[in-house]
Amino acid sequence: MSVYAFVMDPSQLSRGGLPDVRMHGFRHRKSVVDAWNWVSHAARPIADSESVPLPESRGRVLASSVVSPADVPGFDRGMMDGFAVRSGDVQGASPQNPLELEIVGEAFPGAPCSQEVRPGTCIRSMTGAPLPSGADAVLPVEYAEYDSERMRALGSVPPGKHVGRRGEDIRRGAELLPTDRVLRPQDLGVLASVGVSEVQVRRRPRVAIVITGNEVLPAGVQPRGHQIVDANGPMLEALVARDGGISGGPDYVRDDPAAIGEALRRPVDVVLVSGGSSVGAEDYAPRILAEEGELAIHGIAMRPSSPAGMGTLGERLVFLLPGNPVSCLCAYDFFAGMAVRLLGGRSPEMPYRTIRAPLCRKLSSEVGRTDYARVRLVDGEIEPIAISGASILRTTVEADGFVIIAEDSEGMAEGDEAILHLYD
Amino acid sequence: MSVYAFVMDPSQLSRGGLPDVRMHGFRHRKSVVDAWNWVSHAARPIADSESVPLPESRGRVLASSVVSPADVPGFDRGMMDGFAVRSGDVQGASPQNPLELEIVGEAFPGAPCSQEVRPGTCIRSMTGAPLPSGADAVLPVEYAEYDSERMRALGSVPPGKHVGRRGEDIRRGAELLPTDRVLRPQDLGVLASVGVSEVQVRRRPRVAIVITGNEVLPAGVQPRGHQIVDANGPMLEALVARDGGISGGPDYVRDDPAAIGEALRRPVDVVLVSGGSSVGAEDYAPRILAEEGELAIHGIAMRPSSPAGMGTLGERLVFLLPGNPVSCLCAYDFFAGMAVRLLGGRSPEMPYRTIRAPLCRKLSSEVGRTDYARVRLVDGEIEPIAISGASILRTTVEADGFVIIAEDSEGMAEGDEAILHLYD
Repeated sequence: MSVYAFVMDPSQLSRGGLPDVRMHGFRHRKSVVDAWNWVSHAARPIADSESVPLPESRGRVLASSVVSPADVPGFDRGMMDGFAVRSGDVQGASPQNPLELEIVGEAFPGAPCSQEVRPGTCIRSMTGAPLPSGADAVLPVEYAEYDSERMRALGSVPPGKHVGRRGEDIRRGAELLPTDRVLRPQDLGVLASVGVSEVQVRRRPRVAIVITGNEVLPAGVQPRGHQIVDANGPMLEALVARDGGISGGPDYVRDDPAAIGEALRRPVDVVLVSGGSSVGAEDYAPRILAEEGELAIHGIAMRPSSPAGMGTLGERLVFLLPGNPVSCLCAYDFFAGMAVRLLGGRSPEMPYRTIRAPLCRKLSSEVGRTDYARVRLVDGEIEPIAISGASILRTTVEADGFVIIAEDSEGMAEGDEAILHLYD
Repeated sequence: MSVYAFVMDPSQLSRGGLPDVRMHGFRHRKSVVDAWNWVSHAARPIADSESVPLPESRGRVLASSVVSPADVPGFDRGMMDGFAVRSGDVQGASPQNPLELEIVGEAFPGAPCSQEVRPGTCIRSMTGAPLPSGADAVLPVEYAEYDSERMRALGSVPPGKHVGRRGEDIRRGAELLPTDRVLRPQDLGVLASVGVSEVQVRRRPRVAIVITGNEVLPAGVQPRGHQIVDANGPMLEALVARDGGISGGPDYVRDDPAAIGEALRRPVDVVLVSGGSSVGAEDYAPRILAEEGELAIHGIAMRPSSPAGMGTLGERLVFLLPGNPVSCLCAYDFFAGMAVRLLGGRSPEMPYRTIRAPLCRKLSSEVGRTDYARVRLVDGEIEPIAISGASILRTTVEADGFVIIAEDSEGMAEGDEAILHLYD
């Protein structure tokens, strides 16, 4: 009799009705947490780095910390339009008691001032101009009445006032940014200001996207006859890019052991296989992985995506993603995406914004199984989306996001507050 | 006497001590909300669209809604490995009462099945195979014992069970995605599945980044002498890209009216001018804008960035950003970024994740002024970063994000819950 009778689980029948079809054929299923633990141990940050021009480095991950080679500013400077003075010369000045000083020159940004501020004198100074020697403060122009030769101070300033000190912003030798920093726009600004033009960042994880299935037409063509057009390839390509990985786009492979075996051996860091991940006669990838590498996890107590699997082949991490699009998205976000992010030196967390909101309807689940429920946000409440089939990718398009129901939960009641992961 | 004495505000002196230097020279300052209102009226979505290949469309904005040209799936299909049956033939079947059917063929994905299921017969069917004619359900293989010719049903299935109906996922003619959808990975999957290979998206707003200042060296070189290297150009380039705009990188322009005037007339949707935004003798951009276009807002009751301004020159929106990097970042995020996002058909909201957390120290402000306070998140509490000068870009690198203190607030007390905008 068949391979199926062999792995069939009688306890499913004793329950009467149909067994959970997503679990058919799996003797033992690992928990989502087991799978996360496997991923977090298997996916170590890639050591290789590459140099990229500063303007292209936003969102890349620093391969090593950056220490400033320079002081910023590189000189003391006036921080306001006004007059560079010796603060003692204007002490006690006020509109009622103006103090007069001789203007002996002007200081502009970009060049040192040739004159010196001696007692009883001042130098007209623009914002950003190097502080003239002798001066220890800048009197804001609002406190001055003046003509070309003389200035009357209408207020006083303490020593150092409105003076930006050399190294005030960045001190030479100070660590500017730590290893594994995901570079922000302002980080690029700081790096530019100390003279950095190229940044050493971690190499992006290389990901092969392998789409199996004889009935699957490549993305980009029209659906025809009894064939369907691949939805997973373009989706996975976009998800990999989102997580900082790089892929050459999907490869389409027939349900043929040799072709799939070859695909699994691509020279990459991660292989994503969509379709044929279960225990059916034509599910070749899990068997090949088990024979030629390590099939660490196959079958996970979750819905959808329970036929997902993962393992290693040589140095590669291999993720077996169910062919149906929702399961594929879910299995990627739960496991493969985590691996891509970790390999790239990023946080393992799902890159979704989360908010807390009450459920407007109950979400039922089963103890021992983790659920990924697509939901809408309606008037500040979370509304589960009715699902007529696991393969309904449309639900992930209509959904605002998803709620994860942990395996130790039977579900959540109407009114319970849940964490909504927002798709974007 | 000077232009400054002319615009000087005596009330600042009457307060004694120094006036708020960020506000010097501005007679009337608009509120942040006034500026937001101006931006939301001035920045209308750009009507032009362009066609991009589906794989490059993630994060782009749909120029029009997409209606499905096809049913998905395009045919009824079996959703499990098992046997295509007439449900009536297995009614009442159980392990104790197996019902036997003749196997008259096999159905595989990708091709129609040539045989028909007549009463008393069934067809072996793989997941995804077109449903053979005559059959109305699929009996999961777990419920079957069988050899090559005969199948014994150990369970029953109602009509339609495990059958995916034509159009079940997507119905031809249904709206798949609305106008102005920012395309998600799964959206690309859905579009591919209905045969879309090119997507019509809004043209990206074109942004000119103009960096002024004779003392400023272009990003990419080493700081030297009494000159400083531009930090704002690379930062603004990255911010514009983040917000879906496109720029050719920064242009460096001397403090010269002709050069700045020319820069303001670049053929773009938005001009960002960094530096020379205030009311000093060398602040040319505001005057040129006032003379040749409309200087709608100049001087804003906020800290930092109070010397910021905005207006229009022909069709262009022009934003005058203070030269100091923190003010530049703040003014971009408050106003210019909002304009870039609106022009591109995106949400005006700042694209930062936010969390609520208590302040571990008070944050003082002034009624009538909006503050942008850089903060750290320490053990779940918000810690304001001590700031020795507005130009300290380093604070935006050390900070985890910022807290906005509204103009009607005198600040927040220790322990108050604040909204933290997380940099990333």
